Amino acid sequence: MQGQFIVIEGLEGAGKSTAVNAIQTWLSERGIEFINTREPGGTPMAEALRTLVKKVHEETVTAEAELLIMYASRIQLIKNVIEPALAQGKWVIGDRHDLSSRAYQGGGRGIPDDLIEPIRHAVLKGFKPDLTLYMDIDPAVGLARASARGELDRIELEQRTFFDNTRKKYQQIAASDDSIVTINAEQSIEQVAQDITAALNTYYG
Amino acid sequence: MQGQFIVIEGLEGAGKSTAVNAIQTWLSERGIEFINTREPGGTPMAEALRTLVKKVHEETVTAEAELLIMYASRIQLIKNVIEPALAQGKWVIGDRHDLSSRAYQGGGRGIPDDLIEPIRHAVLKGFKPDLTLYMDIDPAVGLARASARGELDRIELEQRTFFDNTRKKYQQIAASDDSIVTINAEQSIEQVAQDITAALNTYYG
Repeated sequence: MQGQFIVIEGLEGAGKSTAVNAIQTWLSERGIEFINTREPGGTPMAEALRTLVKKVHEETVTAEAELLIMYASRIQLIKNVIEPALAQGKWVIGDRHDLSSRAYQGGGRGIPDDLIEPIRHAVLKGFKPDLTLYMDIDPAVGLARASARGELDRIELEQRTFFDNTRKKYQQIAASDDSIVTINAEQSIEQVAQDITAALNTYYG
Repeated sequence: MQGQFIVIEGLEGAGKSTAVNAIQTWLSERGIEFINTREPGGTPMAEALRTLVKKVHEETVTAEAELLIMYASRIQLIKNVIEPALAQGKWVIGDRHDLSSRAYQGGGRGIPDDLIEPIRHAVLKGFKPDLTLYMDIDPAVGLARASARGELDRIELEQRTFFDNTRKKYQQIAASDDSIVTINAEQSIEQVAQDITAALNTYYG
């Protein structure tokens, strides 16, 4: 049997690790084998691209280059890790995937759809997660949590409007796609874990 | 006055350095200021991408990732180096540009146009060189010259059919674009330099 690709999405500090843990528990209880991935990254080449894109550069990083590097990293991960695992019947838990590019680069960075959409379609050719759990949080709450954890990277150093626009795009896409379930990430850790378990039970029940 | 962007293209060992020297001499005689670029590369980020894409990896480098990295490098160079120089009235001599992706990735690697063309158009938005000098050479001759110079990189280690297909694509695009002049690169260095000078005199005469 083909495995399932489940993705966790959301702003910095939305509690993606909590969500991943809840999914892992749910899968383990059912004896389902799984692997974890994160994006950008997840293969040696994709991790090198991750380092490059997250670093603070002296030159201006164009929106186009940022987007292209994200998709280069993504297709390396899909072809070399995700698709082979799914073919072996393993489930894949993804910490971010394509929706992040649409929300951060499209919403936050304001890259127009006529740049993103042709690249997405040409590269992914319809590949998409079976289920996405979007952890919705006010950027002010999320960023306070994230900055308490340590230094912020180049993308996390963006202005508040960037994150407001990213959240708006997340919400907008989530509302229009049945394979995306929105979780209220401002609740307690316990309540978030319960909501995720409930979403998995509903989706795979 | 806006500067001009002149690009040298061709297979490994086609004598691109000879061609660049001939252009530099022609520009210097006319007192025209110029800069040199190479692709992939030419900015710190683009050079990091060049190193990454040329290195031999343990994982499979997908055709899509290779293509996306080439365009990420290219748009960094265009926005941060080429366009500012042209706007200052400087001329730019490019050692490779977009035609290399179309010939190597499209022709050599066989990446279909429905992957390359949407990415090209979305990223470049019509930006193109004013003049391209394509150094045409039999791959057997060019590779013998290139391998005499030292170790070959990941792309140069491809099979002969790869280079035959790359050359075919170069010739095909050159035949259909008036801004590309084909130079017979199997001639003596002196004759090649003369042909390039003649091409510049014709184009800018």
